Amino acid sequence: MEARTETTIFDAVPLDALRRRTSQKWRRYPPDVLPMYVAEMDVLQPEAVVRAVSDALRAGDTGYVFGPGYAQALAGFAADRYGWDVPVADCRLVPDVMLGVVEVLRLVTGPGDAVVVNPPVYPPFVQFVEHADRRPLAAPLGPDGRLDVDALDAAFAAATSGGRRAAYLLCHPHNPTGTLHTAAELAAVGELAGRHGVRVVADEIHAPLVTGTDDTGAPLPFVPTTTVIPSAIALHSASKAFHLAALKAAVAVPGPEARADLARLPEIVLHGVSHLGAVAHATALRECGDWLDAVLDGLRHNQRLLADLLTAHLPEARWSPPDATYFAWIDLRDLPAVRAGADPARLLLDVGRVAVNPGPTFGAHEGAGFVRLNLAASTATLTDGVRRAAAALR
Amino acid sequence: MEARTETTIFDAVPLDALRRRTSQKWRRYPPDVLPMYVAEMDVLQPEAVVRAVSDALRAGDTGYVFGPGYAQALAGFAADRYGWDVPVADCRLVPDVMLGVVEVLRLVTGPGDAVVVNPPVYPPFVQFVEHADRRPLAAPLGPDGRLDVDALDAAFAAATSGGRRAAYLLCHPHNPTGTLHTAAELAAVGELAGRHGVRVVADEIHAPLVTGTDDTGAPLPFVPTTTVIPSAIALHSASKAFHLAALKAAVAVPGPEARADLARLPEIVLHGVSHLGAVAHATALRECGDWLDAVLDGLRHNQRLLADLLTAHLPEARWSPPDATYFAWIDLRDLPAVRAGADPARLLLDVGRVAVNPGPTFGAHEGAGFVRLNLAASTATLTDGVRRAAAALR
Repeated sequence: MEARTETTIFDAVPLDALRRRTSQKWRRYPPDVLPMYVAEMDVLQPEAVVRAVSDALRAGDTGYVFGPGYAQALAGFAADRYGWDVPVADCRLVPDVMLGVVEVLRLVTGPGDAVVVNPPVYPPFVQFVEHADRRPLAAPLGPDGRLDVDALDAAFAAATSGGRRAAYLLCHPHNPTGTLHTAAELAAVGELAGRHGVRVVADEIHAPLVTGTDDTGAPLPFVPTTTVIPSAIALHSASKAFHLAALKAAVAVPGPEARADLARLPEIVLHGVSHLGAVAHATALRECGDWLDAVLDGLRHNQRLLADLLTAHLPEARWSPPDATYFAWIDLRDLPAVRAGADPARLLLDVGRVAVNPGPTFGAHEGAGFVRLNLAASTATLTDGVRRAAAALR
Repeated sequence: MEARTETTIFDAVPLDALRRRTSQKWRRYPPDVLPMYVAEMDVLQPEAVVRAVSDALRAGDTGYVFGPGYAQALAGFAADRYGWDVPVADCRLVPDVMLGVVEVLRLVTGPGDAVVVNPPVYPPFVQFVEHADRRPLAAPLGPDGRLDVDALDAAFAAATSGGRRAAYLLCHPHNPTGTLHTAAELAAVGELAGRHGVRVVADEIHAPLVTGTDDTGAPLPFVPTTTVIPSAIALHSASKAFHLAALKAAVAVPGPEARADLARLPEIVLHGVSHLGAVAHATALRECGDWLDAVLDGLRHNQRLLADLLTAHLPEARWSPPDATYFAWIDLRDLPAVRAGADPARLLLDVGRVAVNPGPTFGAHEGAGFVRLNLAASTATLTDGVRRAAAALR
């Protein structure tokens, strides 16, 4: 295994400082467990975000959210990073991405209607859809981890049978696999959705976290769903890319043909939006591009590091670096213990004392034998984590 | 009019500093309008809250909420202030009071079921109930601004006719009137609710803001609904009393007979809760009692000030200081312009350039001719506001 001596943004916080954090990642398990699960990054906040929120607090600027500041900041960021012209005046603030997804689903479907999802997928997709009295309908990703057009076709047909309304909850980029959908894939989705009359709702919270490059080394583009599917509605938030789950807020962005639908969102949805969440997110999007680039550099480093670590310590693991997100979706089905029926995440936790997200929570069938590991960590943590995992699985 | 020279906590922020705030209160209207509407206080944050949130941000402690810290802080505060033993282990965190109300209503009613409310009442009560596919049913407060047992009896009967489930959304203390319900009134509500099989859900966000005193000058007690009605569920939050609307979070507290119901709250509701909201609220409840007492002193001062100002400048206005909240619910029906059919809030805004909450938004009939004015302001603002109002209404 090649020695990697460069440090990344993830090496800035020592483990003992991380363990003093009071968030879920650092408090759910006892201190002998190394947490490599849940969507929290082991980074410090960009200084501009700390300053903006602290200044607002100090000024007593702690009332209700108002105005287009967050949507404007998103528009600037999106123009710069994606070449996307966000229609600020048509955007709506929502409390967070998942609550926004639910509100948008309520605009385009009724109780009991189907919402198509692509397992393995972020567990709240199924949980929130069910809690919103809609019916999750699975169109699993293909064996290559990409959208399966035939599965979508069949699911869209089933979802709309009897003339029912239906929606498709697209995860773009896809969590947990890190799959970045291409313009061609989105066009195929748009054709299918149009043919079946299915409305596309896209969770694009991982959009800023594209790490992949093409054969020439140029970064892969993030293609906003609404630029390909005009009737789609997308949810954006700075919370994932800027480690701001603690300060929730999100923006719903309609495609050109979805403006009237999003305009029907009740005014009271804004009531649940955090003003300081919007302040923090807007500041991150406006001022913290360099910080984000350091995160992306760190993730590319950590993807190479993980590949090396797995080769050295867990050669049976199947994984290759994804194009996006800070997750590694690792196939452990070739491990003898897993073949014998063990849940790898359970072994990792009980024996290795390392916490990862269990694959089956992303899809009972599609996730069996997989784990999701959080790459937004120091070299020391990743190295220790893989060693713990390897020891636990032998 | 008696001269008042003492300063309060509300005199600490000059108007030009308030106008630099970016929240709804200070941005919805142009700068020639004096905003005296919406539930934002013209105060600075307690230093402990600023420090706790800033420190968490600086440490990168910005992940997902976890643990009983907020409920424990509420329990300490409630024991101290209300003599109430909050069952911490049975409490659940929710994103904010209104989203929590909706989630609790979903536990105890079904789509289309009635939810009884008491107009004039906080407009989101009706809006959120409707958005949750429930049916608001009015049992107006009596002419004395207190709960009307006969109206409740009739509404509970109508709500449950045909064997339907139903809930009663109690506002305690009541917004906008500032009515503090007594133990006897709560007992009467409990008897009625038990007899009709109606579940009581209590928004107790204004509980820390009791300003009233009895004949001996002793503070009136806040009586927690669940201590009188064991099957009730109450929602608490530090956001109103500590000017933290920008950092949302709330705690659902079950009565002794509602624990099993609240335990059915889906785990994913926690997903929408802000970690830094919980940090801020817990800090406020644990460490900022002196700050709150200064707010209460300031409100009592401002109630006397407003009474004097109205006597001097708007003798036709009918108002007496409420027992709770930082609102003044002012009856302007005797003003000639209002008798002639004008909406006083419209005149105040258009002519006086002072923004108050229009009474009819709290109940078309019950609020006609009333305005809600925010008392959490400086002596200068209150004085200017009443002078503007008096000039506009003549």
